[in-house]
Amino acid sequence: MLDTALDQWFTANRSRAFDDLFAFLRIPSVSARSEHNGDVANAAAWLHAQFERIGFSVRTHPTAGHPIVLAEWRKAGPDAPTILIYGHYDVQPPEPHALWTSPAFEPTIRDGKLFARGSVDDKGQVFIHLHALEAHLAVRGALPANVLVLLEGEEEVGSEHLEAFVAAHAERLACDGVIISDSAMFAPGIPSILSSLRGLAYFQIDVQGPAQDLHSGSYGGAVVNPAMALARILATFHDEQGRVAIPGFYDDVRGWPTDVLAGMRNLPFDEAHFLKEVGASALGGEPDHTVLERLWTRPTCEVNGLLSGYTGEGAKTVLPATAMAKVSCRLVPDQDPERIRTLMQAHVDAVAPAGVRVTVRALHGGRPWRATLGGPLFDAAREALGAAFGREPVITGEGGSIPVVGDFARILGAPVLLMGFGLPGENAHAPDEWISVENLDRGVRATALLYDLVRR
Amino acid sequence: MLDTALDQWFTANRSRAFDDLFAFLRIPSVSARSEHNGDVANAAAWLHAQFERIGFSVRTHPTAGHPIVLAEWRKAGPDAPTILIYGHYDVQPPEPHALWTSPAFEPTIRDGKLFARGSVDDKGQVFIHLHALEAHLAVRGALPANVLVLLEGEEEVGSEHLEAFVAAHAERLACDGVIISDSAMFAPGIPSILSSLRGLAYFQIDVQGPAQDLHSGSYGGAVVNPAMALARILATFHDEQGRVAIPGFYDDVRGWPTDVLAGMRNLPFDEAHFLKEVGASALGGEPDHTVLERLWTRPTCEVNGLLSGYTGEGAKTVLPATAMAKVSCRLVPDQDPERIRTLMQAHVDAVAPAGVRVTVRALHGGRPWRATLGGPLFDAAREALGAAFGREPVITGEGGSIPVVGDFARILGAPVLLMGFGLPGENAHAPDEWISVENLDRGVRATALLYDLVRR
Repeated sequence: MLDTALDQWFTANRSRAFDDLFAFLRIPSVSARSEHNGDVANAAAWLHAQFERIGFSVRTHPTAGHPIVLAEWRKAGPDAPTILIYGHYDVQPPEPHALWTSPAFEPTIRDGKLFARGSVDDKGQVFIHLHALEAHLAVRGALPANVLVLLEGEEEVGSEHLEAFVAAHAERLACDGVIISDSAMFAPGIPSILSSLRGLAYFQIDVQGPAQDLHSGSYGGAVVNPAMALARILATFHDEQGRVAIPGFYDDVRGWPTDVLAGMRNLPFDEAHFLKEVGASALGGEPDHTVLERLWTRPTCEVNGLLSGYTGEGAKTVLPATAMAKVSCRLVPDQDPERIRTLMQAHVDAVAPAGVRVTVRALHGGRPWRATLGGPLFDAAREALGAAFGREPVITGEGGSIPVVGDFARILGAPVLLMGFGLPGENAHAPDEWISVENLDRGVRATALLYDLVRR
Repeated sequence: MLDTALDQWFTANRSRAFDDLFAFLRIPSVSARSEHNGDVANAAAWLHAQFERIGFSVRTHPTAGHPIVLAEWRKAGPDAPTILIYGHYDVQPPEPHALWTSPAFEPTIRDGKLFARGSVDDKGQVFIHLHALEAHLAVRGALPANVLVLLEGEEEVGSEHLEAFVAAHAERLACDGVIISDSAMFAPGIPSILSSLRGLAYFQIDVQGPAQDLHSGSYGGAVVNPAMALARILATFHDEQGRVAIPGFYDDVRGWPTDVLAGMRNLPFDEAHFLKEVGASALGGEPDHTVLERLWTRPTCEVNGLLSGYTGEGAKTVLPATAMAKVSCRLVPDQDPERIRTLMQAHVDAVAPAGVRVTVRALHGGRPWRATLGGPLFDAAREALGAAFGREPVITGEGGSIPVVGDFARILGAPVLLMGFGLPGENAHAPDEWISVENLDRGVRATALLYDLVRR
């Protein structure tokens, strides 16, 4: 249970808190657009000032891109745990503006939702921590743990300078656990701990046939068509049952704890609703796994793009010189992007027909991540979320990838807790992004309680 | 043997003939570009004036596109045969200009080649007939046959109005044979009669997966990927041996006369040279057929274009909503484009996976054509070419399609003779288009002799 004094402080300061959050959301800190570089710097400066105001020592570290703000409060003593909170203050571009009901950088509450670019991704969730920390310091003059807050301005553009910063400051950032609030709950009213992320191995496959485009009438039938060769190569990537058929692909897949799988099976997942959301007539993938297992616990191999020959209106009888596919594999523990690259290369070499030259180029890679469920931080999060939302949190997975999570776990050797307060349909990268006002209220309380419980 | 008087007339008029041809070639009659509409009309007017000058009655027929010039000389009497000569006065766009050694519309002779846009396709070959007809009329005041010359200005943009014109004027165009000089000889010094053309059935296959592009991490593994579905569909179009595997595809393929096949096997075809020209490491297609058989006598199924998802630089993790392929089949007698469409649709329906919607749209079709070898026109062409080039002509095929050939054969019920004077590497649709000067000289003589021999 949350300390009554903290709870009352939240109630008393609610109006001012929204004013503060609105001010933060009004800064158009779009990291992808250089014309917003000043705004991104302003958002960093706003956070710097806020954390100083509540009692942290703050330093803004310039990078070759946008600055990293590191706020520290280390007065809990050597026996107290140290936690590192990570978040980001940059936002996605707001375009297309026309599709926003209210302006992207003019925060507006409608129907219990706070609409603004960055409201859920991730300024609103950063603010939850700022406000919970302020509550502790205001009510008690101290925090129950040593707290480091690391805030970057490049998450939406690939966190280019974060890993090097963490590695360079590993000693300073040493901690007992990392908390990240940049994800969503499974459903409204269901607090969630995100326990796994898939990794990624992204490739470009280029097939070179003849030296130049040929007339498909004059040459067709005797020249190997690179687009057809590519299709035949791609068709070998799965078997008839939807399993990836690249030899060795599943070798390093580690089984999932039965209680985690059982928990996922018990989630109130509505397949018909999912199908409607997707807009397809039927689902696909491995039939011996549930949909959530396919999305969270199983690796994939997808075509992300295809290009060859003539793609305009009407008919052009070209036998293309080249064909290209973008192909990416989502990975699960303990698959390694580099090992998958080797397997992909070997498989493509084995199935590529004579008469074309096929190259496989690795474009991007990221390791999968899975939390070790249990331990003081997780136990504290379970209890804090349970108390704030009135029900036990569920354990979820995520099919996408957040490379920084693996970086924190690997470089700092600390457990990472992904405790997010977004919701499905929150439009994180789309017009009309929103965060639930109820989740803001419950989120600050859950977070404030969590700080107390990690001390225990 | 060509009449000595005609031969001497060609020699005496050679210099003036090149002046005339150069004037024709200088007109940039690019039918595809509306800014050249005036030039296209000028080329028609030039032909109109020339045929009038040599003694033909000429009428220029407007169409919704570029005009059709019909020149007639019908004074050979009712017992003489009537021949229809078809050609086109429009040319391909010249771009890119930078790749031309001399300007596209400034005819230039280098190393025995006359370079200009339209030199071989088809102004130079139209000029061969004009000049041969002029020789007869100048030397003898008469032609040995009734001659109709039909010249269109839309061949390079699909001959959109030709079929309707021929059908509307079928009685007026009634003839004992059609001569078209718009093709190439097998090799330098080897006169050739083109005896077959492949037909075409061109499709666009669209695969619709989810209602919109999805994040490949969040959805990958449970949603059917339309690009992967398309690849798997395309991969069923051939078997492992390179034969088309669409059920029923070969049902209507009529066997080829053994003497035609034997003649093709005896052609001096250099596979290593072909491979070098193509620029691939190995050839493909049906291994139990020679390369020329694959190109000329066998039907194909080729991918002409592919498009899906993200095709730019780098990595984007999209699960595409749609995937598209342009696919075309080259057809041989007696395959029918409409029947192939039915088979393609049935096959795609049979192999398309659940979870995507696949549509097959027919974009373009054309029937294959095969000459009936033998008969007065062919016998005359064999002898005339043999005399002019000093060796027996060979019978060749063509993998591409020329729809008007089938139209003439079908509407007029007359045999069509394809007697071309181009050469391999002539760059018909590329920069530095050329025609062999020797072939111009031999071509006018062969053609003039042919007119005499059809009378026999």
